[in-house]
Amino acid sequence: MITVCIIGSGNVAQHLIASFQKSQSNGTAIELIQVYARQKHQLTKFIASAKITNKLSDLLEADLYIMAISDDAISEISSQIPFKNKLVVHTSGNVAIHDLDTNNRRGVFYPLQTFTKNKAINFKEIPICLESENATDFQMLEKVAKLISNKVVAINSNQRKALHVSAVFVNNFTNHLFHLAHTICEDNQVSFELLQPLLLETAQKALLLSPKEAQTGPAKRGDSKTIAAHIAFLSNQKQIEIYKLLTQSIQNHEQEL
Amino acid sequence: MITVCIIGSGNVAQHLIASFQKSQSNGTAIELIQVYARQKHQLTKFIASAKITNKLSDLLEADLYIMAISDDAISEISSQIPFKNKLVVHTSGNVAIHDLDTNNRRGVFYPLQTFTKNKAINFKEIPICLESENATDFQMLEKVAKLISNKVVAINSNQRKALHVSAVFVNNFTNHLFHLAHTICEDNQVSFELLQPLLLETAQKALLLSPKEAQTGPAKRGDSKTIAAHIAFLSNQKQIEIYKLLTQSIQNHEQEL
Repeated sequence: MITVCIIGSGNVAQHLIASFQKSQSNGTAIELIQVYARQKHQLTKFIASAKITNKLSDLLEADLYIMAISDDAISEISSQIPFKNKLVVHTSGNVAIHDLDTNNRRGVFYPLQTFTKNKAINFKEIPICLESENATDFQMLEKVAKLISNKVVAINSNQRKALHVSAVFVNNFTNHLFHLAHTICEDNQVSFELLQPLLLETAQKALLLSPKEAQTGPAKRGDSKTIAAHIAFLSNQKQIEIYKLLTQSIQNHEQEL
Repeated sequence: MITVCIIGSGNVAQHLIASFQKSQSNGTAIELIQVYARQKHQLTKFIASAKITNKLSDLLEADLYIMAISDDAISEISSQIPFKNKLVVHTSGNVAIHDLDTNNRRGVFYPLQTFTKNKAINFKEIPICLESENATDFQMLEKVAKLISNKVVAINSNQRKALHVSAVFVNNFTNHLFHLAHTICEDNQVSFELLQPLLLETAQKALLLSPKEAQTGPAKRGDSKTIAAHIAFLSNQKQIEIYKLLTQSIQNHEQEL
C-alpha cells in the first residue's frame, strides 16, 4: 500500500484529489489518506471533511506528499512537513527539484495541462512528467501517476523548463492571439463566434500534421499585398507590432527550410 | 431550379464540389452543372469528367458562378465569364466585391475555414459569409449556402476584412507559435507530443469561456520571476523578441480592465 497526502487547495490540487478519489473507487493499492488546505471548506466538495487538515503539524505520516501549491510557497512549505526521509514532490513546471527541503527525498510530479475551476477534464489524457533523485522513488511516483494518467514520462529539469516555456507559447500566447482577434472583431461589429470553427480546426490540424506542415497564409506565401492590406486595416499599434513580428518570424522559418 | 458553376480546382473548390455533390444526392432545387479547372484531371476524383471544362469559353449558362481561385486571378477571370447579368461571386476573405467585373451581378461567398488537401471537414459547421449588391441576389446566395452550411451570415466588406485579419491571428500566427514550441522542444530533446493535450484544451477553453477569461500564465499574473527565467532559458533572439512582445501585450490588456 502506498499512502498519499496532497498539500494545496487550488485548481491542480482539486483536479488531483478528484482524480485519486475516482481511481480509488476501483480498488487499488494506493490510498489518498489526507489533504491539507489553509481553509478546510475549499475542499469539502472533493473529499470527506475528516480527511482535511488545515495544520501542517497535523499531517499524517504517508509515503508520498504531493505539493500542489504556488511556486513561491514550495520551498517554505516543504520545510514544514513534520517528517524525515519521506518522498516529497511538487507539481510545478518551473521550480527546480533542489528547491525542495532536504529533510525529505525529493521529486517532481508535473501534470502538463491548464486547469480551470469547474471545467471537468479527462486526467487520463494528461501527460504527467516525473523526476526523482533515485530509481526507487521514480518507481513509486510512476505507480501513483499511472493510477490517474495513461501518459507518464520521465523528464529531467532542463526538459521540464523547455516544456514550461513551450507551454507559455502554446497556451498563454495562443490564447492572447485569440483575444486580439476577439478585439478586432468587436471593433468592427462582427461576431467572434464566426472564427470558432477555424480556431478549433487550427488546433486539430497542428496535431494531425506537424505545425510546420500546417502553416498557411500570406506570410508563408510571401503575399506582400495582403500583408500590407492587413497592416493598413489594423489601427492598434501593439496589434501592428505583433502582426509584423510574427509575419517576419514565419518568413524567417520558411527561409530556413 | 438554381444552376451553379464552380470555377477553380484548389482546396476550397474541391471541398465546395464535394459538399455540393453530397447535398445534391439528398435531392434539392440546386444543381452543380459544371466546374472549370485549368487541368481537368485535378477534379476527376470529385465530379464526373463530363462536367469538367478547361476552357472558360465553354462555360455553360448558369444562375450562379462561384469563383474559388487565388486572389490575384479574381478580377481577370471574372471578366472572362462569357455571359452578362449572371450572379458571379468569389470566395476570398480579402478581395473587395467591386474587384469583380461589372459584366455580371457581383457577390461574395466566403467560407471561413482553413482547408487542407485530403483532410475531410464538416462543411455544415463552417460559417459562410455572404455579400451581394441587392436583396434578390442575397436570397439566391443564401439558398445555395444553406444547402451546404448551417451557419450562413450577411457580412459587409469591412466586416469581412476584420474577419480575414482576425483569421490570420487565430490560424496563421497561432500555428506559428505551435511551431516555435515544437522547435524549443526539439532543441531540448523533449517530445512536442506532450504538449498536444494542452494545445487542444487551449482551443476548447477559449470557446467555452471568452479568450479574455481563459487567459492564465506568468504575464497575466505579473510573475516577473518566471518571465525572467523563461527569457534566460530561450537562446533564439526572435523567440525572445516574440516572448517579450506578447508578454507586454498581455500585461497591457490586463491593465485596461
